[in-house]
Amino acid sequence: MRATVLHAAGDVRIENVPDATLIEPTDALVVISRAAICGSDLWPYKTPEQADIGRRLGHEAVGVVEAIGAEVRTAKVGDLVVMPWAYSDGKCEFCHQGLQTSCVQGGVFGTDEVDGAQAEAVRVPHADGTLVVLPVDEDDALLPSLLTLSDVMGTGHYAALAANVADGKRVAIVGDGAVGLCGVIAARRLGAEQIIILGRHPDRTALARELGATDVVSERGEEAVERVRGLTDGFGVHSVLECVGLTDSMRTAIGIARPGGAVGRVGWPQYEIMPASQPAFFDNVTVSGGPAPIRAYIEELLPDVLQGRIEPGRVFDRIARLDDVPDGYRAMNDREAIKVMVRP
Amino acid sequence: MRATVLHAAGDVRIENVPDATLIEPTDALVVISRAAICGSDLWPYKTPEQADIGRRLGHEAVGVVEAIGAEVRTAKVGDLVVMPWAYSDGKCEFCHQGLQTSCVQGGVFGTDEVDGAQAEAVRVPHADGTLVVLPVDEDDALLPSLLTLSDVMGTGHYAALAANVADGKRVAIVGDGAVGLCGVIAARRLGAEQIIILGRHPDRTALARELGATDVVSERGEEAVERVRGLTDGFGVHSVLECVGLTDSMRTAIGIARPGGAVGRVGWPQYEIMPASQPAFFDNVTVSGGPAPIRAYIEELLPDVLQGRIEPGRVFDRIARLDDVPDGYRAMNDREAIKVMVRP
Repeated sequence: MRATVLHAAGDVRIENVPDATLIEPTDALVVISRAAICGSDLWPYKTPEQADIGRRLGHEAVGVVEAIGAEVRTAKVGDLVVMPWAYSDGKCEFCHQGLQTSCVQGGVFGTDEVDGAQAEAVRVPHADGTLVVLPVDEDDALLPSLLTLSDVMGTGHYAALAANVADGKRVAIVGDGAVGLCGVIAARRLGAEQIIILGRHPDRTALARELGATDVVSERGEEAVERVRGLTDGFGVHSVLECVGLTDSMRTAIGIARPGGAVGRVGWPQYEIMPASQPAFFDNVTVSGGPAPIRAYIEELLPDVLQGRIEPGRVFDRIARLDDVPDGYRAMNDREAIKVMVRP
Repeated sequence: MRATVLHAAGDVRIENVPDATLIEPTDALVVISRAAICGSDLWPYKTPEQADIGRRLGHEAVGVVEAIGAEVRTAKVGDLVVMPWAYSDGKCEFCHQGLQTSCVQGGVFGTDEVDGAQAEAVRVPHADGTLVVLPVDEDDALLPSLLTLSDVMGTGHYAALAANVADGKRVAIVGDGAVGLCGVIAARRLGAEQIIILGRHPDRTALARELGATDVVSERGEEAVERVRGLTDGFGVHSVLECVGLTDSMRTAIGIARPGGAVGRVGWPQYEIMPASQPAFFDNVTVSGGPAPIRAYIEELLPDVLQGRIEPGRVFDRIARLDDVPDGYRAMNDREAIKVMVRP
């Protein structure tokens, strides 16, 4: 079969690799209907560590079950399923509390643990704990939105929960990438009264407005903090969704949080130490978040996608066949595309 | 009247100062029955900034109302009252949401804003929003415990809330000072199943055990993390109360938190940047806390003190008359005393 392999900085290739197969009796083999390129794929793409070289990338997918191990009970051959970016056994203490990303038997697709999903097929460990069967066909028009349940929509939702978004709150989203845009959808869905997006890409912030953003702030740093305060009676917002992961974006996130507010951070942190720790303390700002346990949210978000109440699939602005995946990475890295959907 | 004045590092003196008086119609004048020396008083005591010199220190007190301004409605002359470390108007958005420390008209005793309470009397701004009338006499045996409602008991309680302490949870408290000991009381009161105190002073950890701690960890750094994990099925605790405020203690606090857990920090942070930000992120550990809005908790904690269900007054192990306050500072700074009660 063919799959995406990372060779070097800026160099991903589509190669022939051994066919994906069942290994454990709890595995499922899934033929990919749609996969995606994630903003987090760009970190190894731009600056691969030694361990990243040779990796088979991709951790978001919707596909059809081709085969199941002897112990799999939930998914049947022929089912259309969505696959979270992290697999999990569904049985451990952490799975039970909805933190499947800390599953004691869990792991992440596109790492040493298990191969990636930007491919013709993928082996899914712990299929019963991981996969969710979708009640539609492979050619359904909702497939792009359903695909976002494997990562970005769930991640935006988790950021909103971590930031305590609730009815009537003032909310800001730092970052206008796909996760930030899904954060706008999540904030609106949870009843936010004001939704400010901080971003500098006119096409993305325009989409953010269509998805529910009430205000756009294109400034950065202290100027951004001043703008947001000006929009929020001087005090800042109750909830900040930090969807970037850089020191400056985190500093801004804390700076625009209202006393007693919360920052839900889902941007993969490129900083080892957290800035603005003292302002966060003295304003009683909670910092929460982490890798989003999106498996916990698929059942909750699914009806809203199926009934068209949310349209997270709009974050995809480009479709690539497998051969075009390398150019898809380039396009996302160059900010030419918001998010690329892969159709093997 | 006489009051405590900071002169230089390690040099506080009791001096004659102008009598405290009413200034605003919302003020109350309170004659101090009991005040206290706080761990946070030791920071300006040890390393005063220029602005600290000449300050009249003290922000914890129980006393009798001597006079009230024309607009004061809650407290009457002769009432015994407890005074939170921060005053607040009780009317603004932040007061209404229980974050009185961010009151738009608020401030802190013992600063430029208003004089301190280690004195014969103190002016209390915004008396209606600040003071709580106590239903006992000035000579009541419960006075030490009631005095802790002005800061340390409320601060331990806030740390526990910020760390999401709840029934059946595993909890750790970093720091065996008065706030840490009150954190033990708070964790027990909120139903924690396991309460681990991290501290190195045998007298304090012994008291912690009497107050409800189930385990004592005297190691530090990585060794402490290993010990706590060994006591908690390998994963760490659900809730950590960080009651120190140093970089190392914060790093330990994050290190012993279970995936999905929370750190409630109330130790005045001496670090500008937060360590272990990436571990906190990757384990989905929430970091919350700040200056404790203890005014929000007095009514809730008061019945438990009055009925003897909690005895936070046990953190006081020394009583000083005003003249002995300088030696009280020395004793606390030398770790000879846990916490000094002042009886003018």
